[in-house]
Amino acid sequence: MGESYNICLDIGGTKTLGAIFDSKKNIIYRLKKKTKSGGDDAGNVENLIISVVDEMIKESGVKKSQIHAIAAGAPGVINQDTGIVLFSPNLPWRDYDIRTPIQSRFDVPFYIGNDVNVGVLGEHAYGAAKGYDNVVGFFVGTGMGGGLILNGKLFTGTGFKAAEYGHMVLEPEGPVCNCGQRGCLEIFSAKKGMSAYILQQASRGRKCQLADQIENGVFKSRALKKALADGDTVTMEAVDRACHYLAIATGNMINTFSPDMVVYGGGVIEAVGKIFLEKIEAEVDKYCMPSIRSTVQLKAAALGDDSILYGALSMIPD
Amino acid sequence: MGESYNICLDIGGTKTLGAIFDSKKNIIYRLKKKTKSGGDDAGNVENLIISVVDEMIKESGVKKSQIHAIAAGAPGVINQDTGIVLFSPNLPWRDYDIRTPIQSRFDVPFYIGNDVNVGVLGEHAYGAAKGYDNVVGFFVGTGMGGGLILNGKLFTGTGFKAAEYGHMVLEPEGPVCNCGQRGCLEIFSAKKGMSAYILQQASRGRKCQLADQIENGVFKSRALKKALADGDTVTMEAVDRACHYLAIATGNMINTFSPDMVVYGGGVIEAVGKIFLEKIEAEVDKYCMPSIRSTVQLKAAALGDDSILYGALSMIPD
Repeated sequence: MGESYNICLDIGGTKTLGAIFDSKKNIIYRLKKKTKSGGDDAGNVENLIISVVDEMIKESGVKKSQIHAIAAGAPGVINQDTGIVLFSPNLPWRDYDIRTPIQSRFDVPFYIGNDVNVGVLGEHAYGAAKGYDNVVGFFVGTGMGGGLILNGKLFTGTGFKAAEYGHMVLEPEGPVCNCGQRGCLEIFSAKKGMSAYILQQASRGRKCQLADQIENGVFKSRALKKALADGDTVTMEAVDRACHYLAIATGNMINTFSPDMVVYGGGVIEAVGKIFLEKIEAEVDKYCMPSIRSTVQLKAAALGDDSILYGALSMIPD
Repeated sequence: MGESYNICLDIGGTKTLGAIFDSKKNIIYRLKKKTKSGGDDAGNVENLIISVVDEMIKESGVKKSQIHAIAAGAPGVINQDTGIVLFSPNLPWRDYDIRTPIQSRFDVPFYIGNDVNVGVLGEHAYGAAKGYDNVVGFFVGTGMGGGLILNGKLFTGTGFKAAEYGHMVLEPEGPVCNCGQRGCLEIFSAKKGMSAYILQQASRGRKCQLADQIENGVFKSRALKKALADGDTVTMEAVDRACHYLAIATGNMINTFSPDMVVYGGGVIEAVGKIFLEKIEAEVDKYCMPSIRSTVQLKAAALGDDSILYGALSMIPD
């Protein structure tokens, strides 16, 4: 018996990350590719997965016969039990059975789940939340994702649609979000919300170094990090505002779940998590019950950009 | 073998309800008593339970040897597994083992849980939420209670403190609640919040028939019902405001849990649930994702004032 390997994927709307794990759960090979998801042909993404896996096998030197399983996180509403993607906002999938074609192509088991759910699974299995039974995850990127570990297991709700508290309404008369609601967490605290604030301030003639780097309503996390390091005032205001609402949402989720931990992940946290965590910690006590707060830890994700890859790994039975 | 009976209690801060259930789960005897919870002597409430149970046995004609078990719901943070009351806002209990003295006094098993949790258990076992796996409960009374059924079981979080979304912050700069937070659901949507609004309007010289009936910041549910039936304007405004925020909170909980059902119970719903449900239904779609909303039913509790009694019954193994 030789070594066996698992291939894990983080399929995003713009890029796909891949990793090959050996049996000791070390990453022995990595791949990063742009996701071309244009058109309505669901097969495009299926073909992307196939080509990425093929390329990883070829470039890594791992033999196809040594692959034990493949697992992935992807955006959208996904039935993890059946491998059917019910709906995906950025990918052209509707009630699409992605498991069957991938399994028959590679002749190994294929697992897939919602990307943020899978990221929280990763933090629970291998990262900051390891060993904790009740965990609330906030993933701060272009949008605001959520994931819940309850009683030690991923909670998906009815129809695999739970943990959308990124769209919790916090200001009933606040600005309109893409989701159609007003004043929800995402419109204040995700990149979209911070960008909107920065562009609004720039349009008033205020200087902001991040304003020029906003494309399609978002900026790169490392540009945010640089602007904060440079002490850019408007960027700091946008971050203060983001953390204020994230502290309220955190308090609401603490009152709702009495979790052991709230874990923050995603690109923004990977880049400037220390600043976010400090600001949230400074405010959250105002927005929850002291007796419940007293048993909750707030932590940044420990696996950074690899949360979803490790979460995919955790979906594969030994 | 003769018939066996279960004694169930709903221990409130001001009154205690009792019921004896036969083996077919029919209530064969009822008792209602004022709760005297003054003083710091935790034994007071223990003695209350003992005297209520003794009186129920005596008056009902049921023999002590026919009692199978006793179960109760009470306010506060209660470890249902051990029968220890960790904290109770209106009763003088702190880390108090109530199970042991009651069990040794009556020589039958004694079960106890948080009152709203037990009420939601009752609706799940015998009422509106029967057969549903994921249920969010709002109990609207003096305060705003919560209870969660997730994956078919009561969810209590870490330290039995979950489901305090009655104190979810919805207006970060709103009025201060007893809990110390600003703009939480309870301060708008429970009796306390409606009373505050009504008293404020009355102090401005506006007529409101409910204003005179507010004692210690609350009114009786039947007085609310009468004021609404009489078309009292300020009372209707208070109800509109309560339902507006309850609709937002309902939307937030729908996005968070993707439940099968949201169930509304408590004294206010028992009295005027039809009006509340209509108003919440009319607004809630604005505050959650259509795809998640589409699989959620909103319902009033089916067991009315007996939710907690039936929930206590459901805690007793057959």
